[in-house]
Amino acid sequence: MKKSNHNYVVILAGGQGSRFWPLSRSLEPKQFFPLHSTKSLFHETISRIKTLIPPQNIFIVANQLHFSEIFNYAFEFKIPRSNIILEPVGKNTAPSVGVASRLIMLSDPEAKLVILPSDHLIRNQKGFRNLLRYAFSLTGDQNNLVIFGIPPDSPATGYGYIKIKKSKIKNQKAYQVEKFIEKPNIKTAKRIFQDKRYFWNSGMFFGLAKTFLNEIKNKLPSLYRSVSQMNKPEHINKIWRNIKPISFDFGVLEKSKNLLMIPASNLGWSDLGTWASLDKILPKDKRANTINADAVILGSKNITVFGKNRLIACLGLENLIVVDTPDALLITRKDKSEEVKRVVEDLKKDNRKEVYLHRTVRRPWGSYTVLDRGSGFKIKLVEVSPRKALSLQKHMRRSEHWIVVEGRAKITKGKKVNYLNANKSSFIPVRHVHRLENPTDSLLKIIEVQSGDYLEEDDIVRIKDNFERI
Amino acid sequence: MKKSNHNYVVILAGGQGSRFWPLSRSLEPKQFFPLHSTKSLFHETISRIKTLIPPQNIFIVANQLHFSEIFNYAFEFKIPRSNIILEPVGKNTAPSVGVASRLIMLSDPEAKLVILPSDHLIRNQKGFRNLLRYAFSLTGDQNNLVIFGIPPDSPATGYGYIKIKKSKIKNQKAYQVEKFIEKPNIKTAKRIFQDKRYFWNSGMFFGLAKTFLNEIKNKLPSLYRSVSQMNKPEHINKIWRNIKPISFDFGVLEKSKNLLMIPASNLGWSDLGTWASLDKILPKDKRANTINADAVILGSKNITVFGKNRLIACLGLENLIVVDTPDALLITRKDKSEEVKRVVEDLKKDNRKEVYLHRTVRRPWGSYTVLDRGSGFKIKLVEVSPRKALSLQKHMRRSEHWIVVEGRAKITKGKKVNYLNANKSSFIPVRHVHRLENPTDSLLKIIEVQSGDYLEEDDIVRIKDNFERI
Repeated sequence: MKKSNHNYVVILAGGQGSRFWPLSRSLEPKQFFPLHSTKSLFHETISRIKTLIPPQNIFIVANQLHFSEIFNYAFEFKIPRSNIILEPVGKNTAPSVGVASRLIMLSDPEAKLVILPSDHLIRNQKGFRNLLRYAFSLTGDQNNLVIFGIPPDSPATGYGYIKIKKSKIKNQKAYQVEKFIEKPNIKTAKRIFQDKRYFWNSGMFFGLAKTFLNEIKNKLPSLYRSVSQMNKPEHINKIWRNIKPISFDFGVLEKSKNLLMIPASNLGWSDLGTWASLDKILPKDKRANTINADAVILGSKNITVFGKNRLIACLGLENLIVVDTPDALLITRKDKSEEVKRVVEDLKKDNRKEVYLHRTVRRPWGSYTVLDRGSGFKIKLVEVSPRKALSLQKHMRRSEHWIVVEGRAKITKGKKVNYLNANKSSFIPVRHVHRLENPTDSLLKIIEVQSGDYLEEDDIVRIKDNFERI
Repeated sequence: MKKSNHNYVVILAGGQGSRFWPLSRSLEPKQFFPLHSTKSLFHETISRIKTLIPPQNIFIVANQLHFSEIFNYAFEFKIPRSNIILEPVGKNTAPSVGVASRLIMLSDPEAKLVILPSDHLIRNQKGFRNLLRYAFSLTGDQNNLVIFGIPPDSPATGYGYIKIKKSKIKNQKAYQVEKFIEKPNIKTAKRIFQDKRYFWNSGMFFGLAKTFLNEIKNKLPSLYRSVSQMNKPEHINKIWRNIKPISFDFGVLEKSKNLLMIPASNLGWSDLGTWASLDKILPKDKRANTINADAVILGSKNITVFGKNRLIACLGLENLIVVDTPDALLITRKDKSEEVKRVVEDLKKDNRKEVYLHRTVRRPWGSYTVLDRGSGFKIKLVEVSPRKALSLQKHMRRSEHWIVVEGRAKITKGKKVNYLNANKSSFIPVRHVHRLENPTDSLLKIIEVQSGDYLEEDDIVRIKDNFERI
C-alpha cells in the first residue's frame, strides 16, 4: 500500500447491545454473532470496506472484554495489532472517536476518517462504497465534519433526526445541518416525515482527523487533554479512568457550527436497534411468519420464532417475536420489542448471569458449557478448537476429572505429557499445574467434572497463556 | 377389614393424555405428576377415597408402561399387587372396566363398584365421599348402572352431556337417562345450558360388578368372552390382542336401557381436559396473571407461565399460556389450548421423542438425563435414589465411563465389588457384566459417558433386576 493513502476507517465496536437479549449478552453483543446472515455484523462491516481501505488504515475501538473476538477478526483481515484500541470500560462514543483520531493523527497528520458503527445493516454494498469514495474525495473546508443522513422511508420513532438547511453547498452533495432532533413521538414523526429536510441520523460520519480533534478540543477540552497523553493504544489504561462517558453526537456534533450532512440514499440501511427492526428485514412466509427454529406452528400469523435447542409449538399466536436460548426465553409483542432494554436493566439489578453470558461461553481456545452443578461439583462440556490450547494453569480449591469424548487430547500434568483418545480419562488434583491442548485438526470434546468447595471461574492461576490473559 | 365389605373402587389410570403436553408426555401422563398441588392427581384420587374404601378393595387398571409409578403408589397405599391390572397397550375404557369387573366378581360376586378416572380434579372431598356413600347405599334394581352427572356452570363445549328424564326415581336421588349428547357446538351448548335436564358426563359410574359384566355381555359379547378367560391379572397378556378398543360410554352406557344418573353437585369438579381448564382454577394476581416460573413480566395481562429451568421474559402479552420444559416449549392462546392435541399428533407422525419422554427420564431406581450426545458418545447424568440399584446388566455395543459427582456408589464389575466416593471414576468395558447401586441414604449422582457405535437404550441385557424388568 502506498504511504500516500490518507483514507482511514474507524470502526466503533464497543456496543454492549442489550437490545437483542437474550440472543445477545453483554459479553457477546450483537455485532459479534450472525444475526441475519452467516457472518456477524462486525465481519460484514469490515468486508464492506476492505476493497476501499487497506487493512493498515482500518482502526478498531472495542471493549477489552471482547479482545478475543477482535483479535480473531484482526488476524483474518490482516489489521495490525497497533490499530486496535481496547477500552477498559465503555465510555460512549466521544472518547472512542477521540482516542482513534489521536492515534491516527500521530502517524498521519493528513488523515481523513470515516467513523462507522460495527453493528449496522447495509444491504447496498456498492452504494455504500460509492458514498465513502465521495466523502473521501471532499477537499473543501477543513473545519467541517460531515454526517451521513438516511432519507426516512417511514415516520419512525426509533431514530434521532437531522434537519438540514434548504440549499446545497455549491459543487457538493452536502447540506448545512440546522439542528438535531431526539427520537420523536409518533405525532412529530408523522409531521416531519412529510418534510424533505429531515433525515435519520445514521451514526456514521466523516472528517479530517485534525478536525475531529479540533472539535473535541473546543467542545470537550477535558477529553482532549486526556487523549493528548496517548501515543499508543496501551496508554489508554492510564487515561481512561478520568474520562467521562458522553456520546460524540451529544458532546460534539450537536454543538458544532460547521456540520454538514450528505444524504445516504438507497443503502438498505438499518441500525438493527430492536428485534422488530430485525424482523422487518427477514423473509416471511404466506402468513407473514418467520420461523428459524424447530417448531410446530398452528393458526398463527405475523410471528417470528428464533430457536435452535428445543422444540417450540405455537398455537393461535399473532404479532409476536419468540427468542429461545438455552438459559433464557423472550416472548414479546412486536411493537413492544424495544422494552427488552428494561428487562435487561431489571436483570442487571439482580446481577443475573443471563445478562452477561450464554450458557455456552466462548473462549479464545473454544468454548465451555456448564451442563450441571450442585453442592461441591460442576460438570462442563469443554470444546477445544483444532491446534488450540488452554493456559498452563492450576486451581487452588478444585480438582478436575476429564473424560475425552471426541478427538484426541494432549494433557500436561506437572512435567508429564500424555495423549488421550476418546473414552480415556485423567484426574487433575487440586493445586497441580496442568494444561489441556488439542494437538489435532479436529474438534476435541471433553467432559470435565470439577470437585471442591469453591467452583467459580476466578479460581485460576495462569502460568502460561497463548492469548495474553496473564 | 371385614370380609363383608362389598364396596370397591376401580381407578382407571390408562390415560395417555396428550392434552398437557409438553408437561405431560405419553410415558408420563398428567395423572402421575403434580399439576395444581404438591401431589399428583392419581395420588389425590386414592387419598380422596382411602377413608371410605380399604386398600384391598381398591383396584387399579393402568398401562404396563407405567408399572413403576403404579407399584410405588400401591406400596404407599398398601394396595395388594393382585389388585393391579396392567394393560399391554391402551384399548380405551370398556376393556378396562371389563377386566376389573371380572376379577372383582371372581372373589366377591356381591361386589359394588365405583369406577373413577385417575386424573380428575375434585375440590370438595367430603361432598365427593358423601356421594360415593350414597351410591353404595343404593340397593335397588340390580340391572341398573348409575352415572354421575355434573350440573353445568357454563355452556361448555368441551364436555359430553347427559339428558335426563324429568322425574326422579322414587325414594332416590337418581333420574332415568334419556340420552347422551356428544361435545356440542357453542350454539347448542348455550341452548342446553338453559335446560335443567342436561348434565356434564363426569366419566364416573357405579353399579354391581355383576351388572357391569351383564351389560358388557349384552352390548360387547366379544369383549365379554375375552375377559371371561381371565382368572388373575397376568392373564391379560393372553386375551388382550383380540380385544378391540372402545370406550365404556360409547360401547355400553349409551346403548343401555337401564341407566340412571345421580347429580353430583358442588364437587368443585374439573376433568382438567385442557391447559385452559387448569388455568381456570389457578390463583391469579391483580393483572390476572399466573406466574409459576423464574420470569420477568412487563405490560402483560391474563397470561399463565409455567417453567422452572430457564429465565422467561414476557413483554406486552395477553391471554396466553406458556409452558416451558427442558426440551419443548408451548405458547398458546388460552382459547386454543385444546389444539395441543393436534400438535402432539403431528409430532407422533414424525416420531419425535418429545411426545414420549421428558429429557429427564424417570426410572424405578431414580432418573437419568441425557446432557449431550454426539458421534460415538452420549453423556448422561444418572441419579440413583437411596438404597436403590440398577439391574445387573451388560451392553453389547458400548463401554461406559462413570464419575461419581455426589454420594457414594457401589459398583459391581464381574465378581468384584467397589465403593466409590465423589470424584472417583470407573470404566465398564463393552460386554462386561456390571451393576450400579446406591448403598446410602442420600442421593447418588454419577456422570456416565457412553462410547460406542450404537448408544440406544435397547442395548441392554438384564441379568438381575429388582423391578421385574427381565
